[in-house]
Amino acid sequence: MTAERLVVIGGDAAGMSAASQARRLKSPDELSITAFERGHFTSYSACGIPYWVGGDVERRDELIARTPEEHRARDIDLRMRTEVTEIDVAGQRVRSLDRASGERAWTGFDKLVIATGARPVRPSLPGMDAPGVHGVQTLDDGQALLDSLDRAGAREPGMIRTEGPEVRRAVVVGAGYIGVEMAEAMLKRGLAVTVLNRGEQPMATLDPDMGRLVHDAMDALGITTVNRAEVTAIRTGPDGRVSAVETADSSYPADVVVLGIGVEPETALARAVGLPVGPHGGLLTDLSMRVAGHDNIWAGGDCVEVLDLVAGRTRHIALGTHANKHGQIIGSNVAGGYGTFPGVVGTAVSKVCDLEIARTGLREKDARAVGLRFVTATIESTGRAGYYPGARPMTVKMLAEYRTGRLLGVQIVGRDGAAKRVDVAAVALTAGMTVERMTSLDLGYAPPFSPVWDPVLVAARKAVTAVREAGTA
Amino acid sequence: MTAERLVVIGGDAAGMSAASQARRLKSPDELSITAFERGHFTSYSACGIPYWVGGDVERRDELIARTPEEHRARDIDLRMRTEVTEIDVAGQRVRSLDRASGERAWTGFDKLVIATGARPVRPSLPGMDAPGVHGVQTLDDGQALLDSLDRAGAREPGMIRTEGPEVRRAVVVGAGYIGVEMAEAMLKRGLAVTVLNRGEQPMATLDPDMGRLVHDAMDALGITTVNRAEVTAIRTGPDGRVSAVETADSSYPADVVVLGIGVEPETALARAVGLPVGPHGGLLTDLSMRVAGHDNIWAGGDCVEVLDLVAGRTRHIALGTHANKHGQIIGSNVAGGYGTFPGVVGTAVSKVCDLEIARTGLREKDARAVGLRFVTATIESTGRAGYYPGARPMTVKMLAEYRTGRLLGVQIVGRDGAAKRVDVAAVALTAGMTVERMTSLDLGYAPPFSPVWDPVLVAARKAVTAVREAGTA
Repeated sequence: MTAERLVVIGGDAAGMSAASQARRLKSPDELSITAFERGHFTSYSACGIPYWVGGDVERRDELIARTPEEHRARDIDLRMRTEVTEIDVAGQRVRSLDRASGERAWTGFDKLVIATGARPVRPSLPGMDAPGVHGVQTLDDGQALLDSLDRAGAREPGMIRTEGPEVRRAVVVGAGYIGVEMAEAMLKRGLAVTVLNRGEQPMATLDPDMGRLVHDAMDALGITTVNRAEVTAIRTGPDGRVSAVETADSSYPADVVVLGIGVEPETALARAVGLPVGPHGGLLTDLSMRVAGHDNIWAGGDCVEVLDLVAGRTRHIALGTHANKHGQIIGSNVAGGYGTFPGVVGTAVSKVCDLEIARTGLREKDARAVGLRFVTATIESTGRAGYYPGARPMTVKMLAEYRTGRLLGVQIVGRDGAAKRVDVAAVALTAGMTVERMTSLDLGYAPPFSPVWDPVLVAARKAVTAVREAGTA
Repeated sequence: MTAERLVVIGGDAAGMSAASQARRLKSPDELSITAFERGHFTSYSACGIPYWVGGDVERRDELIARTPEEHRARDIDLRMRTEVTEIDVAGQRVRSLDRASGERAWTGFDKLVIATGARPVRPSLPGMDAPGVHGVQTLDDGQALLDSLDRAGAREPGMIRTEGPEVRRAVVVGAGYIGVEMAEAMLKRGLAVTVLNRGEQPMATLDPDMGRLVHDAMDALGITTVNRAEVTAIRTGPDGRVSAVETADSSYPADVVVLGIGVEPETALARAVGLPVGPHGGLLTDLSMRVAGHDNIWAGGDCVEVLDLVAGRTRHIALGTHANKHGQIIGSNVAGGYGTFPGVVGTAVSKVCDLEIARTGLREKDARAVGLRFVTATIESTGRAGYYPGARPMTVKMLAEYRTGRLLGVQIVGRDGAAKRVDVAAVALTAGMTVERMTSLDLGYAPPFSPVWDPVLVAARKAVTAVREAGTA
């Protein structure tokens, strides 16, 4: 028997999860696995980079779940620093370039997994490539940023004064998850931090009324957030390094600039051979994560679009937890097992210092965009019984469909257990529950963990009233 | 128009929630509300008593959500220290006894709410009524215990050494929620704590393998737990106060004894007039919380049985969160609104110091008792990404139905966000999800809040395998 040949393009979460799961199910005699990774690292947590840069995580290698050597020890032929430059779909082979040796080679496959990830959006503005301007997408990026902080004398947390002549300044461009997490990291390194945000409020993944709460909390933490700020140029100083970030109205001095303006699917390879991409630029797959129209090609992770179960259409969401699930499912399917990815409800959690931020389902504008009519309810409560020490305020906003009362989305901003409360709504969305049914959910109650009415239930009760009143209006 | 007359028996969570909700919907001209409470307090958090006794909550009154005066200000005719001694169902009236004046009176009703709560199980053993032996059901109980601690010189947290001649000893009888919470409280007051547990492991609401983890953690906290210990007598000293607790095998010196051996529905009044009670001694109601067979009598809170949606039969669960929901629903229904209580899935959370304990759905023995065949999966993970500071271990046990893979129950023991994770399973149980569907749930992920696979999802993945293997065995 000749072994089937599996080729994996991309050595991070989705690709290596797929390879590992396939290896669990099939021996090397049954399935050969070759994986190509153009970077220096495999299976690392990009989501952990802000915490490494901020000093919560001490060493880079803690972010690496599995090294190339560990993968090789499990009979995965992993080619590091080797980029796939071409896919030959009909010929069932990929062409690769070994970046160290410059050598090019073709490798044949029976089954192919595309897990090429995402690349940071990097607007082509003057000075964008100046030293001191950093993305935070890869471990290499993180290391470069830390080196830059070294140079700015800000390597040790708290070393730098944020007032007076020695102040060092970080400008973070973008106020989404990466932006606010990097703002925290820069603050922890002792820099004065300004966040330049193109939108109306930070955290555009929330409705503006909830984003406003994040803005206020960032203010209170000493982070300056400038909204409606469109960057026009990066200025450099006499040493060629970044010195300021310019917007239409103003100029913000900067010793270091961090770009947190999102990512887009890395699908150049796949598009070059006509594989189907969706409206957000991600590959389109079926429920088994097979590329639409191709029986022997799968794709997963940050390079695909996923079905939004609430909106009923695809979205692009770059998130390690989805990538790992995709990899797991793809690995099962390529190895003759079975798994499907039904879709997402759009859950995301984050924090800035002790402020927790969470969302799931649709924002107001998402609901409008897909033709849903809805009501909203916003409540304030606490994460513990009000009398229990450490009870802190939390705001919950809930969207429910007009008439049916079906839950459409939840946003939470607060402290003290706020973020993971969104999981209750994520499961309720998945199950298609109404807010009325939610009011009687049997959630865990004890004074250290929740008020007698959990904040999510308080929001559901208010949403029930809103649905009823809208129906009779 | 004459106002309808609503009478409420019992002035805590269920009764006063019902009265308050009814008052929200109906003016005094439309509905008169008379409520009888035999104790000194209304609308207080019995669940908060351990934290008040332990010193986390400073003042008793912080546990009172609404005082008698506040209720009266909202046009509720609240009779404190007044016990209802008889219900005349046919005559639509209740007889009451004013404990202060000794006066007896009849009060007519058009609609009646029974919210008589639960009473602590207090075995009739020699010495059980000795000074220094305390239940912790009411605020009066809590005050008496604090007075007892005063007498033992243990009123200020940490005052008492737990070694040497001055050691003061607390024996807690029972190792359920109240038992372990009171063990923490006694520890915080500086006493040496022994927990006498009749069962195989503490926390009989968990399977013994999970209870074992609680036992080990209590050991590590310095709490001595004695399993399979049946109390036979309470011994008293020369001053008449408690001096030791006796079991069949041994004797445990005690300066104070706390009883945490559970509660049973307080339904003497209702049973005296033939209202229907279930196998656990609680009143039986329909979905609108109306007493079965009686159009104008409702019941809720600790005195009723609730439908267990997973087991398909009734249970008795004394928990403030259910009582509040019942009250809310009853209040709506008596005032011409609409609400139903579909049932529970059996969620409960608790903690001993930093150890969090949670459960929902069925234990192994519950599943067996109702004829369900199942598989189990137990995993260990952490509440945050492994590399994130403060990541602590958490054990998750999951039960899934044989063949169908439907989720049947989850138990969690751990630290750092362990307890409220059970809510995900509570919603999944409510929705009747399979463990396979759960593996792709879109739960919140970021390194400070979860590993890339949430522990609940890791357990679900293992349960999927267990279901498959059981099916082919």
